[in-house]
Amino acid sequence: MALIVQKFGGSSVADAASIKRVAGRIVDTKAAGNDVVVIVSAMGDSTDELLDLAQQVSPKPPARELDMLLTAGERISMSLLAMAISDLGADARSYTGSQAGLITDSAHGAARIIDVTPGRIQEAISEGAIPIVAGFQGVAQDTKDITTLGRGGSDTTAVALAAALNASVCEIYTDVDGVFSADPRVVSKARQVPYITYEEMLELAAVGAKVLHLRCVEYARRFDLPIHVRSSFSLKEGTFVMSPQAIAAAIAEGKAMEQPIISGVAADLNDAKVTVVGVPDKPGEAAAIFRALAEASINVDMIVQNVSAASTGRTDVTFTCPQGMAQKAMQALQAQHGSIGFEELTIDEEIAKVSLVGAGMRSHPGVSATFFTALADASVNVEMISTSEIRISIVTRVEDSQRAVQALHTAFGLDADGEAVVYGGTGR
Amino acid sequence: MALIVQKFGGSSVADAASIKRVAGRIVDTKAAGNDVVVIVSAMGDSTDELLDLAQQVSPKPPARELDMLLTAGERISMSLLAMAISDLGADARSYTGSQAGLITDSAHGAARIIDVTPGRIQEAISEGAIPIVAGFQGVAQDTKDITTLGRGGSDTTAVALAAALNASVCEIYTDVDGVFSADPRVVSKARQVPYITYEEMLELAAVGAKVLHLRCVEYARRFDLPIHVRSSFSLKEGTFVMSPQAIAAAIAEGKAMEQPIISGVAADLNDAKVTVVGVPDKPGEAAAIFRALAEASINVDMIVQNVSAASTGRTDVTFTCPQGMAQKAMQALQAQHGSIGFEELTIDEEIAKVSLVGAGMRSHPGVSATFFTALADASVNVEMISTSEIRISIVTRVEDSQRAVQALHTAFGLDADGEAVVYGGTGR
Repeated sequence: MALIVQKFGGSSVADAASIKRVAGRIVDTKAAGNDVVVIVSAMGDSTDELLDLAQQVSPKPPARELDMLLTAGERISMSLLAMAISDLGADARSYTGSQAGLITDSAHGAARIIDVTPGRIQEAISEGAIPIVAGFQGVAQDTKDITTLGRGGSDTTAVALAAALNASVCEIYTDVDGVFSADPRVVSKARQVPYITYEEMLELAAVGAKVLHLRCVEYARRFDLPIHVRSSFSLKEGTFVMSPQAIAAAIAEGKAMEQPIISGVAADLNDAKVTVVGVPDKPGEAAAIFRALAEASINVDMIVQNVSAASTGRTDVTFTCPQGMAQKAMQALQAQHGSIGFEELTIDEEIAKVSLVGAGMRSHPGVSATFFTALADASVNVEMISTSEIRISIVTRVEDSQRAVQALHTAFGLDADGEAVVYGGTGR
Repeated sequence: MALIVQKFGGSSVADAASIKRVAGRIVDTKAAGNDVVVIVSAMGDSTDELLDLAQQVSPKPPARELDMLLTAGERISMSLLAMAISDLGADARSYTGSQAGLITDSAHGAARIIDVTPGRIQEAISEGAIPIVAGFQGVAQDTKDITTLGRGGSDTTAVALAAALNASVCEIYTDVDGVFSADPRVVSKARQVPYITYEEMLELAAVGAKVLHLRCVEYARRFDLPIHVRSSFSLKEGTFVMSPQAIAAAIAEGKAMEQPIISGVAADLNDAKVTVVGVPDKPGEAAAIFRALAEASINVDMIVQNVSAASTGRTDVTFTCPQGMAQKAMQALQAQHGSIGFEELTIDEEIAKVSLVGAGMRSHPGVSATFFTALADASVNVEMISTSEIRISIVTRVEDSQRAVQALHTAFGLDADGEAVVYGGTGR
């Protein structure tokens, strides 16, 4: 008997009708002969409504109390879901994060899972019941206070619990059909990706594809737990996120087609570009800049240092970081103006990062050439470049980003019903 | 330093503005040099809204899940109240019933408190913080599931926690000024009672005065804990519910006036009268009737057995019980029709129970005479009578009940600014 963990997001349990629909789906999975554990988020916009209430009583509510408040949201959705399942004749029991054994540190609002001790969940499963667990929340190991895991926390709860219970698969239900080769709102011919590796998913999540959060994918990779991202509004299969070995096995068993070289193209419009102008070109200057940024906890992404002009002996250092951190970065550098002898600081928020992700590019050296040729043909100006083993990213103007994504999507044969670009015959 | 427990009901924390007002009151009590522990109910109508949601997903939700759902209500109000207090510069921390050590049995929806282990609350107090505790809820000792205490549960939480913490007083804040000598909607000259004994309060609660619930008063009496019922909308003192000894001490210290003989008059319109007609007048018949009712868990209140008619050798047995149990009582008796040879069963829901309560009537034998004279003068027909040491109750027609209450209130000198009836000079 397989154990399946199913996670339903807020849009899947937004009202009584949705809750009943989801209940039916869960009971069907159980009736098909599986053990089922369910993780559920708060209903629809209820978390925002609770945050609004908090703002009405205090402009800066204590983080401990905010966590206590927000966890009421899953308490409501999980008990209602358990009622709806019971109404269909199955035995369902709801559990808070604390009752389910989600042990965290005490970083309220962004707690990290330290341990999972799901004794009560295992007991419920062994009694034939369907445990319904509150996502997004846990209990602090030291203070015993209630904590929340921060953005994407319910996905992380699902994966952590699935790993602790040694589940066959963690199904993440959402309002889209799975992971796409590009944002369907930008690329009309974007198509759903049936299989993707953890690494590719991590790269895509890092560059702005919002289907799964980084922490959840990292957790799944660490425990080699397959994730199945699928729609709660249809029965068709979504996207499996797995190890390369598991995908290879699926291909060998005829369950999966050969993997394409490229999984997807994504654009991220939330970065800013900061340029430190006129830095003396001598050893240690760049180090001083990035030490100042690190001490201010700025997440620096891409870095470019110009060749210095021989006439001045000075150079420019440019980096990108999240827009929300750009002002803090400027202040941290300005504070070091005495020791780092730069001439001025400029900031540019009108940039976009466009990224191509694919495990196949490791063994296909032609990818870069196709990438830059496609951008050149589409008249996209490249301002910065960074690469990992399975990703190429560039910075360009915001207004060029959609054109860049579309050109790359076509050039790499990702368009649905389109022609595949062939590298030695294994293009897709 | 005194420890004061303050309980605020749903109407006192109905919205953000009310929560801020209550927060100010709590901080003032703390600033006056007291330790304070707060118990809070769910906001305004939020419990009804949650019940409505439950009905939408299941017509008969499991009691365990209903308790999980409803306890979200206090979670929201208590964390918001803690935020509002923090915003005023004090240290407030919210605790669920489980965290506060409210250990109950596992009777979901009407759990009884088995033990109170308030270690975390004591720790918070010793650190100078104000603990905010969810009313109405606890955790089952055996199953570790979340429970609720049923109607009036937050008052019971407050009294139980106050007793466990050895508090000086438990203040119950409500939307009226305290306990009144009669329902002010019925008797315009009703006045607030400054002191009342536990026993009188129990009798009043049992006959329909809804300020405090029976369980809460019983709990306070057992631990000899003073309750102060007062309005959250004014600063004036309300009604102290205490032992006769404590009231005598207050009188001796000049804090309280002499107690009136009669504390109050109340009418209860929720009973039904059932008559078993034509019961054979022989030993054991009445016993058989009340055994059948007891086995069906019917709470029988007043009982009258007519003198049997010599011609038939049969009599009528009449009793009252809550209207909600009357049909069940009829069925239980009908099932015994073979063994109890009665002729028919009649039911009458158009009755009212009118009661006079006062510890002073123990030592004042004239009370009954005044009572029945007043009713006779007001043309109130008396159908049944029952008495306890400190209460006289009668059953009359619903339409006569208001007139009966007004007549008794006047006759016993309870009218505000009215003349006191004097018994040997100690009438009030």
